Amino acid sequence: MNMPTFTAAELAARFGLELRGQDRTVAGVGTLADASPSQLGFLANPRYRSQLAQTRAGVVVLRADDADACTGTALLARDPYVAFARIAALFEPRPVHASGIHPTAAVDATAQVDPGASIGPHVSIGARSRIDAGAIIGPGCLVGEDCEVGEDCELQARVTLWTRVRLGKRVRILPGAVLGAAGFGMAMEAGRWINVPQLGGVVVGDDCEIGANTTIDRGALGDTVLEEDVRLDNQIQIGHNVRIGAHTAMAGCAAVAGSARIGRHCLVGGGAGILGHLEVCDRVVITAMSLVTHSIREPGEYSSGTPLMDNRSWRKSAARFKQLDRIARRSPGDAKDTE
Amino acid sequence: MNMPTFTAAELAARFGLELRGQDRTVAGVGTLADASPSQLGFLANPRYRSQLAQTRAGVVVLRADDADACTGTALLARDPYVAFARIAALFEPRPVHASGIHPTAAVDATAQVDPGASIGPHVSIGARSRIDAGAIIGPGCLVGEDCEVGEDCELQARVTLWTRVRLGKRVRILPGAVLGAAGFGMAMEAGRWINVPQLGGVVVGDDCEIGANTTIDRGALGDTVLEEDVRLDNQIQIGHNVRIGAHTAMAGCAAVAGSARIGRHCLVGGGAGILGHLEVCDRVVITAMSLVTHSIREPGEYSSGTPLMDNRSWRKSAARFKQLDRIARRSPGDAKDTE
Amino acid sequence: MNMPTFTAAELAARFGLELRGQDRTVAGVGTLADASPSQLGFLANPRYRSQLAQTRAGVVVLRADDADACTGTALLARDPYVAFARIAALFEPRPVHASGIHPTAAVDATAQVDPGASIGPHVSIGARSRIDAGAIIGPGCLVGEDCEVGEDCELQARVTLWTRVRLGKRVRILPGAVLGAAGFGMAMEAGRWINVPQLGGVVVGDDCEIGANTTIDRGALGDTVLEEDVRLDNQIQIGHNVRIGAHTAMAGCAAVAGSARIGRHCLVGGGAGILGHLEVCDRVVITAMSLVTHSIREPGEYSSGTPLMDNRSWRKSAARFKQLDRIARRSPGDAKDTE
Repeated sequence: MNMPTFTAAELAARFGLELRGQDRTVAGVGTLADASPSQLGFLANPRYRSQLAQTRAGVVVLRADDADACTGTALLARDPYVAFARIAALFEPRPVHASGIHPTAAVDATAQVDPGASIGPHVSIGARSRIDAGAIIGPGCLVGEDCEVGEDCELQARVTLWTRVRLGKRVRILPGAVLGAAGFGMAMEAGRWINVPQLGGVVVGDDCEIGANTTIDRGALGDTVLEEDVRLDNQIQIGHNVRIGAHTAMAGCAAVAGSARIGRHCLVGGGAGILGHLEVCDRVVITAMSLVTHSIREPGEYSSGTPLMDNRSWRKSAARFKQLDRIARRSPGDAKDTE
Repeated sequence: MNMPTFTAAELAARFGLELRGQDRTVAGVGTLADASPSQLGFLANPRYRSQLAQTRAGVVVLRADDADACTGTALLARDPYVAFARIAALFEPRPVHASGIHPTAAVDATAQVDPGASIGPHVSIGARSRIDAGAIIGPGCLVGEDCEVGEDCELQARVTLWTRVRLGKRVRILPGAVLGAAGFGMAMEAGRWINVPQLGGVVVGDDCEIGANTTIDRGALGDTVLEEDVRLDNQIQIGHNVRIGAHTAMAGCAAVAGSARIGRHCLVGGGAGILGHLEVCDRVVITAMSLVTHSIREPGEYSSGTPLMDNRSWRKSAARFKQLDRIARRSPGDAKDTE
Repeated sequence: MNMPTFTAAELAARFGLELRGQDRTVAGVGTLADASPSQLGFLANPRYRSQLAQTRAGVVVLRADDADACTGTALLARDPYVAFARIAALFEPRPVHASGIHPTAAVDATAQVDPGASIGPHVSIGARSRIDAGAIIGPGCLVGEDCEVGEDCELQARVTLWTRVRLGKRVRILPGAVLGAAGFGMAMEAGRWINVPQLGGVVVGDDCEIGANTTIDRGALGDTVLEEDVRLDNQIQIGHNVRIGAHTAMAGCAAVAGSARIGRHCLVGGGAGILGHLEVCDRVVITAMSLVTHSIREPGEYSSGTPLMDNRSWRKSAARFKQLDRIARRSPGDAKDTE
C-alpha cells in the first residue's frame, strides 16, 4: 500500500488550522515521543508538554497557548485531539469492498440485498431481512430473520444480528458482537424455569459503534434501543428493553441489566454495572467497576468500591468493614443520624 | 407472517384460567402501558397495579385479588406471569428449520447426523460427534470432536462446542457461546508456563439454556457439569470442573472459577464472581457484582461491595476505608472482638 | 481412539523421576479420589495427602517427602504437578490436521499460505496476510488484512485476527477470541463523537495462549504488545496500546484499559480491572475483582473490595460506609493523619 502525503499547508487549509513555521511534507502520524521527522504529532494533554522540546516530529498540532514551546512547524487548533483525529484518518488504510454477494454466502430467498451492498464470504442472511446500499457485511457475519441494516453500515466480521435487529445508517459493529439474542426472561413454575418469549427487537440509531464480543439482547415486549451516536466498547452486555441515550459512551465490560434507562451524554467506566429498571439522567459519569444500585437524577460523577491496598492492609480494613455498624454505634455521639 | 388470534375463552380453557367479563379476540400481547385493544396485557408486579385504570389492553391476565380493579375482560391466574409467558409463546414466530444438511456444511466422515436433525450453512462437525433427531445446528456453528448433541437441542448461530461436550435434550445455546474449550490449567516450570492437559469434557443437562458469548471450559480430569434446567445469561464464564446444580440461574457477566460447586435453585446476580474450589449450598442468592470468597453453607442472600455515592463523598469514605483498622482501634472499648 | 499405555519405569526414565515399588502399566491419569488401578494419580497439594490411604490409583506421582504415606507404586518428583502435566500430555488426544487449504476457505490472492499450514473449512484470509508452516487455522477462523501467523500457531475455531496482528510461534488461541479490532478511541466534537483512527497493530510473542472470547484491541499509534509466554484466560479485555510482560497470567474476565503497562511474572485474578496509563511492576499479584487505580511499583499482592457477608449484615456495613468520614472525625484523636 502506498501511503499518501500532504503538506502542512494543505492540512491547515483542509481542517481550518493555522500554520506556524515552515511548510513541510507529512507522510504519517505518531506520538510526540515516537514520531519521525516525516510524521505529524500532537499535544492535547498538558501532561505531555515537556515532550515538545525533544520531539522529532516534523509537524505538531497543538493549542495556540502551547505554540511558543514548539520550535518547529506547528498547526494551531482549538481542539488538537480532534484535529489530530481528522488528520490521522487520512493515513488510515481503507479496505476495498466489492459490491455484490460472495459465492459462499447463503442468502434467503425472501431477503432483500441492495446491489450496492457488499456481502462477504461465509455470510448467512435470513428470511425477510434487508441490507441497504453501501452496507458491508464482512466475512462470517450472520444476519438472522426480520433484520434491517441501513445504508453504509459496517458489520466487520463474525457479527451476529439474530432476530428483529434494525440498524440505522453508518452503524459500525466490531467482530464477534451479538445483537438480538433473546433477553434473559423466565418464570418459575412448579420448581422449573419456563421461558418468557422475547417478542421485541433491537433498534440502533445512526452512527452508533458496537465493540467486539459485545451483546445486546432484544426486548421482551417493545425494543431495546440505542439512540444515535452511542459508543459501546468491547464485551459490554446490554439487557432486554434497555434504552441508552444519544452520545453516551461505555467502556469495556460494562453491563446494563434489563429495562434500565440511561440518559444522553453519559460516560460509563469499564466493568461498571447498572441494575435493572433504574433511570440514569443525562450527563452522568460512572467510574470503573462501580455498581449503580439506584436511579440517578442529578448529573455528576458517581462511584462505588474501595481503594486498592496491599493485601495485608486490605485484610485488616476488610475485617473491620464487617464490624462497621458496631464500631459506629460505639463512636461518640452516634449515628442513628443516617443520611 | 400471519399472526394467529385466539379468544379469551380459548386461552382460559387452554391454560386453566378463569374468564371474567365479555369474551374478546386476542391478536398479540403487550405491557399494560402499551398494549392495544386487540392485545392481552398482564399484571404480575403489584407496583404496576395503578396502570389497570388506564390500560387499553383488551384482556388482562391477573390475580383474582386484583380482578376488581379491572373494568374490562380479565383472565384470572394463580401466577399471572407464568400464564402470560404461556400465552405469549403462542405469538412467538417460530423459524422453520428444514431437516438435512446444508450443502455448505462440512461434516466429518466419522460424525453421525440423524436424518431428522437440521444442519445449517457454514457449519462444521468434527470427528466422532453425534447429532440427534430434532436438533438444530444453526448457521456458522461449530461442533468439534467427540461431542454429542441431544434431541431437540438448538444451537442458534455461531455456537462452538469444541471438545467432548455432551448436551442432553432440549438444550438451547445462544449465538457466540463456546463450550468445551481447554480449562485454564498450567504449571510453572523453570520460569515458564506449561499446559496441564484438559482431558475432561462438559456435560450439560436437559433443558439448560446458555447465553450469548458465554464460555464453559471442559474439565481437566473429569467433567464440568451443568445439571438440568440451569439458566446462564450472556457473557458468563464457567471454569473447568465446576458443577452447577439444577434450576440455578446466573445473570450476565457472572463468573465461576475452577472446581467450584454451586447448589440447586441458586440465583447469581450479574457480574458476581465465585472463587475456585468453593461450595455454595442450595437456594443461595448472590447479589450483583459480589465476590464469593468462602464456601456458603446456609441458604440466604449474600453480598459484598459498597453503595454508590457521588464521587466527592465516595473519595472521603474510600480514604477512611484505608484507615479503618486504626479508626477501630481508637474507638471506645475496641474491637479485638472480631467475629 | 486407542489410548496408549506406558509402564511406570518408562515414565520414570522419560521424565527423570524415581520409581518406588513394583513396576505397573499406566493407561491413563486421574485424581487420587477417582483414578482406577490402571491410572496414575498425583499428590501436589498437601491438603489432599489424606487421600493417599484410600486411592485406587495404580501409580502415584508425589514428592519424596510424601512417599512413605504411599503404599503402592510411586514416582518421586521434585514438582509432582509439573511431572503430572508432562505425563498427562501423553494421554491427550491430538486431532490430526491435514496440510493444505479446505475447499470452502476463501483466501485473498495476495495472502501467502505456507504449504505446510492447515486452513480449515469456512476460513477467510485477507489481503497481504501470511500463514507460516505448521500453523493451524481451524474452522470458521478469520484472518483479516496485514496479519502474520507464525510457525506452529493454532487458531482453534472461530478466532478473528482482524487487522495488523502479528503472532510469534506456537501461539494458541481458543475459540471466539478477537485480536486486532479497533481500540476504543474517540474525541468529542460539537457534541458528537468522532473516531480516532487506530493505526497500530497487535504483537503477540512466542508461546502465548489466549482464551475463548477474549478481545485484544490494536494500538492507536504503535502496537498493543504481549511479550512471550503470556497466558490469558477467557473473556479478558485488553485495550489498545497495553503492554503485558513475559510469563504474566490473567484469569477470566480480567480487563486492562488502554496504554497500561504490566510487568513480567504477574498474576491477575479473575474479573480484576487495571485502569489506563498505569504501570504495574514485575511479580505483582492482583486478587480477584480488585480494581487497580494507581501504578504499582513494589512486587507483592494487592486487593480492593469488601468481604462477602449475609445481605442483612452487609446492608448495615454499607450504610455505615457512607458515613465513614463523619464517624472517623468523631473518633477520639482523629484522623487528619491520612496516609
